[in-house]
Amino acid sequence: MKKIAILGASGSIGQNTIEVIRRHPNEFVLVSFSVYKQIELIEPLLNEFKNVNVVGVKSLEEIKDLINKYPNVSFYEKDLGLNKVATSSCDILVNALVGFVGLKPTLDAIDAKKTIALANKETLVVAGELIKRKAIENNVDIIPIDSEHSAIYQCLEKNSKVNKIILTASGGPFFKKSLDEIKNVSKEEALNHPTWKMGRKISIDSATMFNKAFEIIEAYHLFNVAENQIQVLIHPQSIVHSMVEFVDGSIKAQLAVSDMKIPISYALTNGRRLENTSDFLSLSSVGKLEFYEADLNRFVPLKLAYQALINKGTYPCVLNAANEVAVELFLNDKIKFYQIVDVVIKTLSAHENEKGVLTYEKIVKADAWARNFARRIY
Amino acid sequence: MKKIAILGASGSIGQNTIEVIRRHPNEFVLVSFSVYKQIELIEPLLNEFKNVNVVGVKSLEEIKDLINKYPNVSFYEKDLGLNKVATSSCDILVNALVGFVGLKPTLDAIDAKKTIALANKETLVVAGELIKRKAIENNVDIIPIDSEHSAIYQCLEKNSKVNKIILTASGGPFFKKSLDEIKNVSKEEALNHPTWKMGRKISIDSATMFNKAFEIIEAYHLFNVAENQIQVLIHPQSIVHSMVEFVDGSIKAQLAVSDMKIPISYALTNGRRLENTSDFLSLSSVGKLEFYEADLNRFVPLKLAYQALINKGTYPCVLNAANEVAVELFLNDKIKFYQIVDVVIKTLSAHENEKGVLTYEKIVKADAWARNFARRIY
Repeated sequence: MKKIAILGASGSIGQNTIEVIRRHPNEFVLVSFSVYKQIELIEPLLNEFKNVNVVGVKSLEEIKDLINKYPNVSFYEKDLGLNKVATSSCDILVNALVGFVGLKPTLDAIDAKKTIALANKETLVVAGELIKRKAIENNVDIIPIDSEHSAIYQCLEKNSKVNKIILTASGGPFFKKSLDEIKNVSKEEALNHPTWKMGRKISIDSATMFNKAFEIIEAYHLFNVAENQIQVLIHPQSIVHSMVEFVDGSIKAQLAVSDMKIPISYALTNGRRLENTSDFLSLSSVGKLEFYEADLNRFVPLKLAYQALINKGTYPCVLNAANEVAVELFLNDKIKFYQIVDVVIKTLSAHENEKGVLTYEKIVKADAWARNFARRIY
Repeated sequence: MKKIAILGASGSIGQNTIEVIRRHPNEFVLVSFSVYKQIELIEPLLNEFKNVNVVGVKSLEEIKDLINKYPNVSFYEKDLGLNKVATSSCDILVNALVGFVGLKPTLDAIDAKKTIALANKETLVVAGELIKRKAIENNVDIIPIDSEHSAIYQCLEKNSKVNKIILTASGGPFFKKSLDEIKNVSKEEALNHPTWKMGRKISIDSATMFNKAFEIIEAYHLFNVAENQIQVLIHPQSIVHSMVEFVDGSIKAQLAVSDMKIPISYALTNGRRLENTSDFLSLSSVGKLEFYEADLNRFVPLKLAYQALINKGTYPCVLNAANEVAVELFLNDKIKFYQIVDVVIKTLSAHENEKGVLTYEKIVKADAWARNFARRIY
């Protein structure tokens, strides 16, 4: 039985992870989790999973009655809550937090030598260099949960040299529209992803392609390739989750239905394939799989990602922070859809890179600077 | 340096194997080969590959001058020639013979404990049961060269349970035609395969789908799956060379340009991927990959293959022998295209299965009976 901790239990990945644990009761046991806003989820989880003994919350004040009702469970709030879940007595930590907030608990978990199943993109996007260094120092495995990176992880071979990693991208809801046509798309249109049901932030990131930009940066750190060995290919059906091209000309691809339970269960077992509890893919029903080159002039965020990898240092961090602010502004109707990219470009242009070894302190500083700067553009 | 022996050096697979050896002179050395009709190939090969010391030919009479000119090379004729190449001092034997004649040298190589890179389909089609038993007894590896089986071999994982093997089939030149339309297609039309350049026998087998039928039987023996775990999927682009579906719902696919040098070099190294000397695949240039269910009523040979696997014994052998005769009759303008399947069905219907443990003698007997029977139908 593998003991599982979940940071961000109420989100899409968190809920899917809980479903995987539920469907494989002989494999996994939930021992700790955090939730932020949806505190109504805590009690049912405690009733269902009796081995949970650590819970992280936004505010202890909000859950006083639970603290009294479940004396065997330790509740912690805010950053301490995330830290306590990340370092709880688990075999694997699922980091399913959304945003920059996911970074610190990853670092804590690495210090505590926990295996990490990583869904929090920001961890590697803003601090890939730091995370990799610390993971190696502490001999910690970081296993991707993201469908694309899981696909690559599944396709890699221990002794085979990689020529290129091919990240597939659905292209989002606006793939067939021109840059002009998407200038003023509505929130509702942007949130309506064609193939995956996801949270709001990641849905907008998919529509802008910043999500794929982040995945380029993640792939760079996860798989030890050069930035020019990472190619994005538009694949509207989202059936091929990604591919690896080896030096011999063979490409290996992983395909499956769009169900995060498949990569999550692969990550939780670290590669032992459990019986599927979801659907199997029928390729003849899908009929055709299409592939288009990703035009970097059309999908500017991809270009920004490659540039950030070349610039290194705090550039990727600023890319992320500016985008996080811009998406928030867009979701609050403060800026138009096309201005999301604009905010990021302007922030990156104004940023002075922090040279030398990347530290957590430098990242926090750059992140704060970028957020502050990005907020003032419009 | 790996010492390579090639049975059938003049054919398509043989020539591609030689090209792989030529392009990787630090990896491979050719030590023996056989040719049948194209004796003009022998001298250039001996001049190019100085380590060749065994050559198998159709008739010593035909190559008298070579025997005198190359005193360090041992020449043998007929079955002995094949036997001497199969058991020559090599690290790996490439069996690229076409037809039933490929079986005996495979058995000889197994007895001599040679690793076998197998392109000869008939070996496993007619004698899969026997070959598998002997390979296990002698602890011999049989590595597929066929692009489909190589793809599967590349996608399998040591510790992952397979749900299903998905053999892709281009559908051949007549995939979009009705059974009625293909009744009287010409030899030229049947030989004109849309995606692969191959020998005459295998081109006709691709047009009838007997080639795919044989691949079902080969996959059954190579990969230890039940017959109902093997699915054929029509994929006209021939880019996905085959796939493996695991129990967790993940499908892994191998993709590459249609170049046999890729699976051949994979087989020769047994999985160490060498630098590609061919083209790399551009999926955005291909644009789309299509998949259609294979209708067993439209593609009767597939149904016959599943039935032969259920019937076991000498049924697969008779399937092969009857088809070999029928293709020969078709190529000699003795029967029409649609009658190829007809000859096979009639022969199978008349066959009385040889029960009990499958032996070489039983196979030879059934093969001879089937050929004799098939020849007399029209």
